[in-house]
Amino acid sequence: MNGTLHGLGIGPGDPELITLKALRLLRAAAVVAYPAPENGDSLAREIVAGHLPGGQIEVAIRMPMRVERFPAQEVYDRAAAELGRHLEAGRDVAVLCEGDPFLYGSFMYLFGRMAERFPVRVVPGVSSLTACAAVLGAPLAARNDVLSVLPAPLDAGVLRERLAAADAAAVVKLGRHFAKVRTVLDELGLAGNARYVERATMDSQRVLPLSEVEPGSVPYFSMILVHKRGEAWS
Amino acid sequence: MNGTLHGLGIGPGDPELITLKALRLLRAAAVVAYPAPENGDSLAREIVAGHLPGGQIEVAIRMPMRVERFPAQEVYDRAAAELGRHLEAGRDVAVLCEGDPFLYGSFMYLFGRMAERFPVRVVPGVSSLTACAAVLGAPLAARNDVLSVLPAPLDAGVLRERLAAADAAAVVKLGRHFAKVRTVLDELGLAGNARYVERATMDSQRVLPLSEVEPGSVPYFSMILVHKRGEAWS
Repeated sequence: MNGTLHGLGIGPGDPELITLKALRLLRAAAVVAYPAPENGDSLAREIVAGHLPGGQIEVAIRMPMRVERFPAQEVYDRAAAELGRHLEAGRDVAVLCEGDPFLYGSFMYLFGRMAERFPVRVVPGVSSLTACAAVLGAPLAARNDVLSVLPAPLDAGVLRERLAAADAAAVVKLGRHFAKVRTVLDELGLAGNARYVERATMDSQRVLPLSEVEPGSVPYFSMILVHKRGEAWS
Repeated sequence: MNGTLHGLGIGPGDPELITLKALRLLRAAAVVAYPAPENGDSLAREIVAGHLPGGQIEVAIRMPMRVERFPAQEVYDRAAAELGRHLEAGRDVAVLCEGDPFLYGSFMYLFGRMAERFPVRVVPGVSSLTACAAVLGAPLAARNDVLSVLPAPLDAGVLRERLAAADAAAVVKLGRHFAKVRTVLDELGLAGNARYVERATMDSQRVLPLSEVEPGSVPYFSMILVHKRGEAWS
């Protein structure tokens, strides 16, 4: 009988923000897989390191530094084949997903390749969206607010339009797009309503006023939250 | 010394979807507070019932059935005063929040009243958004998708406009607004891309095709997820 593929949301970074369910399935799995850079340590594995019982088979899904569409597909094809062999051998596989597996997570590329062939279960996790709001002490959305989640790589024009139409917004995946997003917020007169946080709930977490953010040093795991009313509850 | 007010995200309904952190703080608090209907049991308390150690002071924040703006404010004023007395006596207070405290949660009304007077810490939780996606086996958003969260009580025209502009959307708080939302989805040709789920991860969870949903029986804790591409990973 085939094993089950578990997509486990492990939360935004603080090891204590994993759920009881993800922890139980993580500990019980014969195989633990996780995304990793081409060289070096996996952030996802670091988050759960203190929870691992030892003795599990580990599979690092290593993504080349400069990924174009085609090589990324190859990486997931190979990973799906490797994990598939474990599942066919009856071993349960736990795939670690930072935040939540189905919210901008790379797990969905494995899911798309494997869900028709194997039993798959997804355990939702605490996403960085609400983790950032908690860290900032600033509610995301209230009452009948429209909340939009906007990936920063979008064109400035699209970002401007969507920010103008939302009551509240989270601009995610900032990285090298910070300066563009900052300009759009200035144009809309929303910079004063915006809050910046990077690596929320991790030891290296930083919260900064927009004006003190050095655009060249913004990591991928960073976010700007904006609320039109200033405060969601007002 | 004053106690600390903890806003604890307890997740969408499955008692195992609470985080280690929320569980630790819940068990350690001298006082546990939770939203409740005017009469009867609190859903939030039911979710964590199996985790309670016993011997804690409990405060039910009871909301009258038909809430207009003013009485709701009074309820939170009174609750803030009552919880404030516990904090002043040096007792930590844990407020249970279904899903996440800062995503359309009523906790923010306590937060707004108490954050300047007392130490407040918010523990993010698994929100119903990602819980619904997990239950449906349908990723919410991928790559540079714009994801919009739309409260169903909004006017049909606003819903139509925002749905048309998003790549992916979650229409929340459906309740008696289901028929209106269904009509808007039909007009936009998106009904085939929409999935319905109610009470995700609870024992009473139901997943239905839109066409089989009885508009008169839709609970508040229900949601429609829509993706323009049909599948987020495609």
